[in-house]
Amino acid sequence: MLVQGQPYRTVWLEPDGETVGIIDQTLLPFAFETLVLRSTTETARAIGDMLVRGAGCIGAVAAHGMFLAARECAAQGLRGGSFDRAFAAKGRELCATRPTAVNLAWAVERQLSAVAMVDSGTDKVTMARETALEIADEDADFCRRIGEHGLALIEDCFHENGGKDSVNILTHCNAGWLAFVDYGSATAPIYAAHMAGIPVHVWVDETRPRNQGARLTAWELGQQGVPHTLIADNTGGHLMQHGMVDLVITGTDRTTCTGDVANKIGTYLKALAAKDNGVPFYVALPSSSFDWETSDGIAAIPIEERDGSEVAKIKGLAGDGEIEVNLVAKGTPVANFAFDVTPARLVTGLITERGICPANEAGIRALFPEKVPASGHV
Amino acid sequence: MLVQGQPYRTVWLEPDGETVGIIDQTLLPFAFETLVLRSTTETARAIGDMLVRGAGCIGAVAAHGMFLAARECAAQGLRGGSFDRAFAAKGRELCATRPTAVNLAWAVERQLSAVAMVDSGTDKVTMARETALEIADEDADFCRRIGEHGLALIEDCFHENGGKDSVNILTHCNAGWLAFVDYGSATAPIYAAHMAGIPVHVWVDETRPRNQGARLTAWELGQQGVPHTLIADNTGGHLMQHGMVDLVITGTDRTTCTGDVANKIGTYLKALAAKDNGVPFYVALPSSSFDWETSDGIAAIPIEERDGSEVAKIKGLAGDGEIEVNLVAKGTPVANFAFDVTPARLVTGLITERGICPANEAGIRALFPEKVPASGHV
Repeated sequence: MLVQGQPYRTVWLEPDGETVGIIDQTLLPFAFETLVLRSTTETARAIGDMLVRGAGCIGAVAAHGMFLAARECAAQGLRGGSFDRAFAAKGRELCATRPTAVNLAWAVERQLSAVAMVDSGTDKVTMARETALEIADEDADFCRRIGEHGLALIEDCFHENGGKDSVNILTHCNAGWLAFVDYGSATAPIYAAHMAGIPVHVWVDETRPRNQGARLTAWELGQQGVPHTLIADNTGGHLMQHGMVDLVITGTDRTTCTGDVANKIGTYLKALAAKDNGVPFYVALPSSSFDWETSDGIAAIPIEERDGSEVAKIKGLAGDGEIEVNLVAKGTPVANFAFDVTPARLVTGLITERGICPANEAGIRALFPEKVPASGHV
Repeated sequence: MLVQGQPYRTVWLEPDGETVGIIDQTLLPFAFETLVLRSTTETARAIGDMLVRGAGCIGAVAAHGMFLAARECAAQGLRGGSFDRAFAAKGRELCATRPTAVNLAWAVERQLSAVAMVDSGTDKVTMARETALEIADEDADFCRRIGEHGLALIEDCFHENGGKDSVNILTHCNAGWLAFVDYGSATAPIYAAHMAGIPVHVWVDETRPRNQGARLTAWELGQQGVPHTLIADNTGGHLMQHGMVDLVITGTDRTTCTGDVANKIGTYLKALAAKDNGVPFYVALPSSSFDWETSDGIAAIPIEERDGSEVAKIKGLAGDGEIEVNLVAKGTPVANFAFDVTPARLVTGLITERGICPANEAGIRALFPEKVPASGHV
């Protein structure tokens, strides 16, 4: 997508063919800076320090980190099994940075399997580079397809509203291109509509406590020229009561095979308001975000509890730089649950790379028939 | 209620009998400072600059401001009609500071009527002092009674839970004693339970964008030693899904005679979550907060749209003082709706100074039979 008018992905091979480029997302929206990663260790640090975040983005950056790892192993003159062992150790270094990130482990695994198939150090490096590019392209392609399928929903809204007014879409957190390689999940239909000339306007939840909506979603929509308005998370219900939202689209961190949606804390409240006001509530996701083993999302999906300082303190721009300020009196007890689970009954549909399906087991398995249910659902 | 172990109200006559004391609430929770008001103009400035806020508190401060106004008129040697005219002009000065604050106009009116009943300047000053004290005492007494009635609900929860665990209560915004003269509305039952030895724990919504929960409610609960935990506004639904909330109690800015509740933006989302999870949702209010003329809250109650900078910027403590930081990129469009309306169907009951009633016209009028419905409901 565009940054200051130039097309970007969240991760790329530098022109030298030897290093990897990323965007330092911690500096957004106040500064746009790219960074060159030269080693596995630098890649691990970038992921661990959350310079990059978001499932698809982390996976693709890790895949590129494994290309750097392969180069390091080859430089040591390794080949065959000894290459693979050293390569796997570097994979573990990457995986250790964010142990719960499913896409990270998945991308590393895919690199290990691919690289094991060839023997010489040179071939392994070539294979790792190709696999990294493949993973990134695949992520971008899945998001592009999510955009195509979701576009139809926005077109329908536009025509239902008489084909004159903007379609008002509410989103929560950042399920934008910054969280993937390109296009994003929840934002992909929005960008597709915008490019197709359908007028859209996005209500952007600021998404406390980490403000990914205010910092990332608002910024990336602005860079594409998509009309948007930032709101406090408390606002969506009021907007829906007054007919100011046509469609809700969010992303998801994990969706059960029965359609329960784990996503950033607060998503459930918006789904309730959508249901109460007859507003369609869609969740956009690449199929890698399905959890095929779990059926009761509320009971079974563990909800990460993060440090209370994320609620009690906040970073913002003062003068030229960002500083952190305290929002509460010293010693105030704080709880910080990172996600919630929206039960399938509140979800109108799921927008995947293969099309849109109802948020239930039959609907999901009809789109993904090759996913056999594991015995003993949780 | 207690501040650093000492009992306080939000407004009082100073021992000199000639000036009025208030708490500068803009400095909370980082500093506790009281302030002496010596004139109508100082009082108007304190209300206008929001050193005091909250319906009951504003009304009582204005009533005390009118005592200062009476002293000023008497000092000019005025009496009878000329006193009353000058006194009314000072009342208008106070009312102009927050034109939508119903309690402000009401308190000023009450002072004008009372003072008009006596003739000499001295008698008028005495009457204004007595009326100010009466208004403050009445506000405190109504809140105390709300606490007594609401206490029964908390006791019921405590016994239903087996009489061992704390009763978990979620509240939104600040409907605490700082918003009234004493006790508060939503907090009154909580303080009553705490004083009665029933273990309570309060989930405090931070209440973006102005963070009254984080700044005021958390502080005042802490000063009384009531266990509490601050949370992002997004969190309540998750807590209710997991049985971590026994009761929701909020205040209200205006409740229709049919039970629709206008309150700080985001209240509606919590009411939806309470309904979805079978958690009782109560609204505590003195009867002065009823709007006897309006029946369709969502259609008829105007929702104030405030400046977007309240969302885009935030104040917090950095070092010794508070500073303001920017949370979003320059030029980001922001909307800031201050209130929403929770439809009566989501409200389990209303806790008033006369008792608890269902949130419908029959229930409300049964408690307040003297309030004849105006012809032509909106």
